Amino acid sequence: MNTVSIEDHNALVQAAYQARGYLADEARDAAEMCAAATWHGNNTHNAIKALHLDDLFGSKAGGCTPGAEIEVIENRFSAAEVWNAHKKLGQSVAIQAFNRAIELADQHGVGIVSVDNCFHYLWGGGYVIDAAKRGYIAYTNCTSSLAEVVPFGGKSPTLGTNPHSWGLPTQDAVGFPLCIDWATSTCATPMAAVDADGNPTQDPNKVTALLPFGAHKGYGLSLINELFGAYIGGSLPAHRGRSLPSQDEKSSTSFFFQIIHPEAISAKNFALGRNQAENVKAVIENILGPGNENAILPGQLEAEAATRSEQAGGLLFSDAELAELNKLASQLSLPSLNTTSLLS
Amino acid sequence: MNTVSIEDHNALVQAAYQARGYLADEARDAAEMCAAATWHGNNTHNAIKALHLDDLFGSKAGGCTPGAEIEVIENRFSAAEVWNAHKKLGQSVAIQAFNRAIELADQHGVGIVSVDNCFHYLWGGGYVIDAAKRGYIAYTNCTSSLAEVVPFGGKSPTLGTNPHSWGLPTQDAVGFPLCIDWATSTCATPMAAVDADGNPTQDPNKVTALLPFGAHKGYGLSLINELFGAYIGGSLPAHRGRSLPSQDEKSSTSFFFQIIHPEAISAKNFALGRNQAENVKAVIENILGPGNENAILPGQLEAEAATRSEQAGGLLFSDAELAELNKLASQLSLPSLNTTSLLS
Repeated sequence: MNTVSIEDHNALVQAAYQARGYLADEARDAAEMCAAATWHGNNTHNAIKALHLDDLFGSKAGGCTPGAEIEVIENRFSAAEVWNAHKKLGQSVAIQAFNRAIELADQHGVGIVSVDNCFHYLWGGGYVIDAAKRGYIAYTNCTSSLAEVVPFGGKSPTLGTNPHSWGLPTQDAVGFPLCIDWATSTCATPMAAVDADGNPTQDPNKVTALLPFGAHKGYGLSLINELFGAYIGGSLPAHRGRSLPSQDEKSSTSFFFQIIHPEAISAKNFALGRNQAENVKAVIENILGPGNENAILPGQLEAEAATRSEQAGGLLFSDAELAELNKLASQLSLPSLNTTSLLS
Repeated sequence: MNTVSIEDHNALVQAAYQARGYLADEARDAAEMCAAATWHGNNTHNAIKALHLDDLFGSKAGGCTPGAEIEVIENRFSAAEVWNAHKKLGQSVAIQAFNRAIELADQHGVGIVSVDNCFHYLWGGGYVIDAAKRGYIAYTNCTSSLAEVVPFGGKSPTLGTNPHSWGLPTQDAVGFPLCIDWATSTCATPMAAVDADGNPTQDPNKVTALLPFGAHKGYGLSLINELFGAYIGGSLPAHRGRSLPSQDEKSSTSFFFQIIHPEAISAKNFALGRNQAENVKAVIENILGPGNENAILPGQLEAEAATRSEQAGGLLFSDAELAELNKLASQLSLPSLNTTSLLS
């Protein structure tokens, strides 16, 4: 692996976003979230993928509007804000929404921000890990840019891969925030996909759509995102990210963010005189007790990757990824990235 | 099936609870939630099971304290309450907690109530269906009375069957509230249980514990309940509902309730001039569109059972269930239940 400093990486990615018309602060947000993904070992949501997504669905395709301003929709509620993102870059929207939800939770114990007219925020895990590190219980769900998943029992893809992400401030308990973060589509298994008749298939030539994970349970979790989207302002799921039969249907996604202040759910009566952080630590240790030494915690792999990044003193990229980034640098008439490693 | 009127059913169940020392209002809450379960076709959480649970873990076993009073723990947050249930009957606690969360959501857009020192609330679906019928987005999770599930990759049961229940006010869209309600343990499948070495088994003689559904995804969802419990005030999960190595560890469960006011997440900008309810209807119809006619919605089976109950004019019990209820009536020196059916 090649080590690239965060500064060099962010300068390149920021330049790439600014070349596409994004404002300096949007480009900075985008670069920082790409860096956070790579830092935590997530190579499916790194800078290369983010820019590819912008090509396919974003500023180049009309799904995302550089420089758009967030509009706060008035309502009568004190702990719940609703925004119209006007298709602003998802990373900037998500960062600001979680910051606002934290302010609301500081005051009310819980704060929610719902956002209409969104464009992809990339990696939900990055935001909830950040909020958890700041001491909060964080949750986000969103509808996906494209409907690729069939309802349990159906054969036509009308659901997004609709992810859920939770972050829990367990760093004092286990050294890192627990991060539960996955799409509701099945990951690679024999029952991951269906053919045109809705029958499970492993034949890549016959796959037309994905199945929800965990049968009816994952289907229910996927529906939650669609329903939150429907209450917020999202339009027909099967139309999202596709050319529309009706120009009047919306094709944008919806975001939902929630922060709970851990003090706001504390009954202040922990066994053996423990404080809240000590209690969380004792519970996790009990779950991973004798017989369960091989079980890992969600967020642990990301934390281990972050440790490797820290030891290397920067972001770790494979040769192929580095070549992609340097191709980008060349396109922008920027010098190739320096690679150094504290480990080498 | 035999049809028993709600009044007769509730009178019997209420008498049974009062005979165990519960107050009249607790007994009424218990009876009403049992009736709601049977009305919705849920025969795993009906009156017979509720009283059996009270025998095993509740008032007869010291896990539940009839007549206990809920204590509100002071905090500085306006949309988040925390209660100490002092082991009061779970049904009464859950009904009151959702009522309070609704008041908080009416004011703040979102309201949460977290409860320490709890005893089993039986069927989460019943409460969220009720709240959804009143127009709210409802959610609850809790830790289970007994740790029966192994962490993904482990072999020792240190997690509860930890259910999640969501209710969504979709009655205007599809005629009933969507209800997504399940335990995070696997239901009957070839990969449902493990032997003493943590290996999947179908041999009932070798089963020592259950697996989470959906591998690491269901495991993560199960952990959320444990962590909420840990932040609220729950103690070591592997000790819950078992005889304790240390008398100072708590063995009670924890509840978490949340209500979101649908208006509080509306961006008021739905496609084609729809209002929020019309938009929710359009989204669900799109999900169940061509090719997906055979897919059902979570909550649909419960709604169909409720229709059957309504048509029969009462609660539907099998012969075996009716015999159990009449055995109970006899023990309480009450007459046997009348059975009538509008359908017969």
